[in-house]
Amino acid sequence: MHPASPAIDTESVTALLERGRTLATPVLRAAIDRLAPPMNTVAAYHFGWIDAEGHPAAGDGGKAVRPALALLSAEAAGQAPEAGIPGAVAVELVHNFSLLHDDLMDGDEQRRHRDTVWKVHGPAQAILVGDALFALANEILLELGTVEAGRATRRLTLATRKLIDGQAQDISYEHRERVTVEECLEMEGNKTGALLACAVSIGAVLGGADDRTADTLEKYGHHLGLAFQAVDDLLGIWGNPDATGKQTWSDLRQRKKSLPVVAALAAGGPASERLAHILAADAKKTETEIADFTEEEFASRAALIEEAGGRDWTSQEARRQHATAVAALNDVEMPERIRAQLVALADFVVVRER
Amino acid sequence: MHPASPAIDTESVTALLERGRTLATPVLRAAIDRLAPPMNTVAAYHFGWIDAEGHPAAGDGGKAVRPALALLSAEAAGQAPEAGIPGAVAVELVHNFSLLHDDLMDGDEQRRHRDTVWKVHGPAQAILVGDALFALANEILLELGTVEAGRATRRLTLATRKLIDGQAQDISYEHRERVTVEECLEMEGNKTGALLACAVSIGAVLGGADDRTADTLEKYGHHLGLAFQAVDDLLGIWGNPDATGKQTWSDLRQRKKSLPVVAALAAGGPASERLAHILAADAKKTETEIADFTEEEFASRAALIEEAGGRDWTSQEARRQHATAVAALNDVEMPERIRAQLVALADFVVVRER
Repeated sequence: MHPASPAIDTESVTALLERGRTLATPVLRAAIDRLAPPMNTVAAYHFGWIDAEGHPAAGDGGKAVRPALALLSAEAAGQAPEAGIPGAVAVELVHNFSLLHDDLMDGDEQRRHRDTVWKVHGPAQAILVGDALFALANEILLELGTVEAGRATRRLTLATRKLIDGQAQDISYEHRERVTVEECLEMEGNKTGALLACAVSIGAVLGGADDRTADTLEKYGHHLGLAFQAVDDLLGIWGNPDATGKQTWSDLRQRKKSLPVVAALAAGGPASERLAHILAADAKKTETEIADFTEEEFASRAALIEEAGGRDWTSQEARRQHATAVAALNDVEMPERIRAQLVALADFVVVRER
Repeated sequence: MHPASPAIDTESVTALLERGRTLATPVLRAAIDRLAPPMNTVAAYHFGWIDAEGHPAAGDGGKAVRPALALLSAEAAGQAPEAGIPGAVAVELVHNFSLLHDDLMDGDEQRRHRDTVWKVHGPAQAILVGDALFALANEILLELGTVEAGRATRRLTLATRKLIDGQAQDISYEHRERVTVEECLEMEGNKTGALLACAVSIGAVLGGADDRTADTLEKYGHHLGLAFQAVDDLLGIWGNPDATGKQTWSDLRQRKKSLPVVAALAAGGPASERLAHILAADAKKTETEIADFTEEEFASRAALIEEAGGRDWTSQEARRQHATAVAALNDVEMPERIRAQLVALADFVVVRER
């Protein structure tokens, strides 16, 4: 899980993530308080602030990479980090809107170690609250009433459309026998890259940055997102369940055509061909049959993916995307301290284990 | 179905609706063309431009009251009707986003004489395409790049949140034994009033109208929406299926707590009490048992609602809301020709039979 293994300053990254969480959460909570019952409760459950019975909980709200990026984005444009808060909150709202709807569409029953919203509160609430979070994201930005807020909202809207495109591609790929590496990268760029890119530009745009600066920051964020997703795809097969909060071999259980799988299938050679043969047979099985696989059956598939080169290729891809992201930062003028923090965050993204 | 029976100029209203359709549809189609496959096809099916097999169709795209209002809204602010086109398209996109999601949440299988999107293309496409239409609505407005566009988008976002609140209330009322007239009116104000109100202000806001003017126009739109919904509730029970495109006794089949029903239950007296008794027993029946009711069984319930005064009350309510709407127009300066057309549209809304 250490594809790049750069020497990162963990303390500084932890502090950045913590700052993002500390500054964004109160504003996020106030936004959720605007929702009419029962949507406010359902949203609070989703964010981990209360449990299924409505009792306060100190849940896992996720890594909070996006809010941290939005604050750094404001600082990259010479503003105080606080100028990025509405952007941080808006991006978190859109991210969670997509989680609510995707979990329902994908039938995923667990997220962050807990039952998903549609599982606890039903499909209608998952749809409604997702819709409400999307609307709130625009509301939070547009009530700033500035031209910059309009530009930021437009960028967020375009990123959201890509998010939706990515989910549409993801769904259509499930029914296809073969997906190319290029198609998988395009899907991941839409599903993960677009919103991370927006997180990196939104603070700067709110702070008055021009479109060229915003576009370059988005280039960093887009490649950071692809690096992030490559690592996620590695964790989805070889991750430690205690750290990821997912089952062992999670993506294999869902027969996901993630990067290691498509890269292994594209590689050719005996292991690749054996893998193709086995996965073609798996595709004909029912979900229950797959769920009944032993640990060894999943482990042998994972071993084949690795033997065919899918694991190495994905590790290298994470490193390549990381390098492209970091290089993009050289095309934007910003305080050196901020550049170093953006580099540290990129380093963190590729070495994380959850 | 003639609660107000004003002498309206049908030709002029028909021309207004036709103008809205003619100016908005090409821009709406171009917006839908931006969607990636298969979402563009699913959206085209929803709008009635193609059939379930993908062949071109000249489907029923609805009455198109909202686009007509958005163009008049621009004219009320002294602009050409064309200045309201992006607003007309954005409001139509939000309206159809809500139809896609509501039909899925409500399990409705038919809309505008055709199978609904979730029924033909599955729940995931109904969610995805709904999300995409909502995003497109903001995109269409914000790419104008003006301060006015930001203000218009903010108003549209707030209206959308009310729309979502209204659907949440509608869902929660289904599980309640008793709903008050006030609760029903609040729900209908959110579900129908808010977006009609936005349609009436959005063209003016894009044309530079101040907030006071926009708020007053919204007051007209809000009460127009309540009049519209009261008539819809009458048509939902006593409408002619050939005109409405719905089944006979449509709202009774769905056990909807619409205005005539809640007003009848609130009225007291023997018919009201008998109705309450019957509906309480119906509430314990399964959907299949209700579906198997004879025409006479529905007719007897409709007769009790009428005898208890629910039909008359709702007709009067439509007339009251119509009067409040029209009166609000006196608080805005606008060309007399435009005021007359807004009055004609309000008249049309309360006398329509579909």
